[in-house]
Amino acid sequence: MAQKAVFYHAGCAVCVDAEQRLAHALNPADYAVEIVHLGQQANRIAEAEAAGVISVPALVLDGHPYHINYGASLAEVKGAA
Amino acid sequence: MAQKAVFYHAGCAVCVDAEQRLAHALNPADYAVEIVHLGQQANRIAEAEAAGVISVPALVLDGHPYHINYGASLAEVKGAA
Repeated sequence: MAQKAVFYHAGCAVCVDAEQRLAHALNPADYAVEIVHLGQQANRIAEAEAAGVISVPALVLDGHPYHINYGASLAEVKGAA
Repeated sequence: MAQKAVFYHAGCAVCVDAEQRLAHALNPADYAVEIVHLGQQANRIAEAEAAGVISVPALVLDGHPYHINYGASLAEVKGAA
């Protein structure tokens, strides 16, 4: 059964590239990927922080955070949200 | 047809985790993943650098580098190799 994966981003160029090339490249048999734009869904920031996300873009797989390159810190996203 | 993906690592704990959870989660219909241990295959370091890899673990998809969390810089890997 597919496990949950959440891709957190903030609309930045680095984020969009990582979403298109990496988030959508996960095996759909393994992971059901949800895309969350933290700039537009500020109510999800606390959840990302709890999972250990410190910058975007980041992919949380099975509760483990994987930061992919670097677009912006979560603090910057909070300031912009 | 599956495109080429190369996962560069250096055997560190962060690398092993990213390999197991992320590199092996790519859709096999999209990507054929090659795993390269730069500490053991120092002759591949130049190729990783040419693709823009500056730290490991990193995944190169279609020639674009995606650094996943941070294990070690390529300079450190060179020093250890």
